[in-house]
Amino acid sequence: MSERSVSHICPDGYQRMLITIEYDGHQLVGWQSQENNPSVQGFLEAAAKKLTTEPTFIYGAGRTDAGVHATAQAAHLDVPKHLDERAVLMGLNSWLQTKQISVLSARAVAADFHARFDARERGYLYRISERMIPSAIERHRVWNHRGDLDTRAMHEAAQILIGKHDFSSFRATGCQAASPIRTLDELSVTRTDTEIHIRARARSFLHHQIRNFAGSLVRVGTGKWTAQDLARVLAAKDRTQAGQTAPAHALYLTSVRYPDLAET
Amino acid sequence: MSERSVSHICPDGYQRMLITIEYDGHQLVGWQSQENNPSVQGFLEAAAKKLTTEPTFIYGAGRTDAGVHATAQAAHLDVPKHLDERAVLMGLNSWLQTKQISVLSARAVAADFHARFDARERGYLYRISERMIPSAIERHRVWNHRGDLDTRAMHEAAQILIGKHDFSSFRATGCQAASPIRTLDELSVTRTDTEIHIRARARSFLHHQIRNFAGSLVRVGTGKWTAQDLARVLAAKDRTQAGQTAPAHALYLTSVRYPDLAET
Repeated sequence: MSERSVSHICPDGYQRMLITIEYDGHQLVGWQSQENNPSVQGFLEAAAKKLTTEPTFIYGAGRTDAGVHATAQAAHLDVPKHLDERAVLMGLNSWLQTKQISVLSARAVAADFHARFDARERGYLYRISERMIPSAIERHRVWNHRGDLDTRAMHEAAQILIGKHDFSSFRATGCQAASPIRTLDELSVTRTDTEIHIRARARSFLHHQIRNFAGSLVRVGTGKWTAQDLARVLAAKDRTQAGQTAPAHALYLTSVRYPDLAET
Repeated sequence: MSERSVSHICPDGYQRMLITIEYDGHQLVGWQSQENNPSVQGFLEAAAKKLTTEPTFIYGAGRTDAGVHATAQAAHLDVPKHLDERAVLMGLNSWLQTKQISVLSARAVAADFHARFDARERGYLYRISERMIPSAIERHRVWNHRGDLDTRAMHEAAQILIGKHDFSSFRATGCQAASPIRTLDELSVTRTDTEIHIRARARSFLHHQIRNFAGSLVRVGTGKWTAQDLARVLAAKDRTQAGQTAPAHALYLTSVRYPDLAET
């Protein structure tokens, strides 16, 4: 396991903590730290440094892009042993220099726990509305796609994508994953009173995979594509065949699951 | 009717239009125009001037404070007769210099219609959450009041306030209304999966009335006050007796009703 070296073990005198994090991705550059730009990791590491009084790295379960939200991102950090779960939870929140990030929980975990490598499933929600006039209040929260969408057709077509496939057609050109093969456990399309919700679950996803799913499923919803068209696109293993990359601001990381731990 | 003079009649060659408006009140100074500060009325009047190519006043059904949201504010304006409902709806939205305001509908109305004086009922929603850690995503949308609230006690106490009363105890010190007497038609407290919703309906409200209701009802919800305490506060006609003014950012203007018109 080259990626998971001994350096990933929590050092003596420290306690590894799993934290869950909610954030509003609007005006953030995404999860990953960037010098002089507001990132979730950057804000959290600044807060952790204040709490622990030493440089403290935050390991996320996965990156999210600029604009993407999370209701339950997961991450781990190592803190001096005198800090317990409550001290970490309350301390990080009190040192965070923005209210657009909240630490929701902190839990002591084993010294070899790793937020990224141990994650067994990620869950995402993609929100679409169909209003003629986009919502002002939800403008950074929901993708407004004007006009009625056939959500039953979208859901049925989505089932074609379930299982283990080469998802090259739904992968960002800059995706750094070693393999385009992923196993998709859920891709459901449901309608609420006012919105359409796409929910996706998998051990891991390719870069832009869910936003590319959303863009392609909307083509099915408008009747431009049939389920067979979607199957053909999947089989083509060619990004240029699929639909548009739907906007980041309607995507939410909603869960990260670990073995022997409750859902975060 | 001194307030409703002949100058409130739509001039010849013009058509009066009733519009409904959604807005995100965050970082706006409220409904009313203020020089050099972002207001809903100011943005709408700028858009209307672009659309009509002349100075155009927007008359709102009521003012909302800085930070307060609306899902259906109402207002009227007079436009040259060649502009129909669709031209007003699409034109205002296309000229609006912010997406935090959306015009949801435009409807031709009688020349003597008045958005403020003809309104028969205003409806508001106040959202409260009880999370230990406030939501990052909803931080400008919901009042986070940590700890469980007894919503049944809140609802029962709220019923004391229904009807015609002198609401001086729930009136902002700067309130400019001629009389502190109002008739409250609804004040309900309900619990959703994740929030507490206070809904209020009346022909009109005093300044801060609903936010003062919310602050006082929370005292009932925590057990600090009984329903009898609330009755005593109402009878005192003294602002210093009531609870805090709850934050603006959790208040939504949700409806304005007119006679012979469907709810806006």
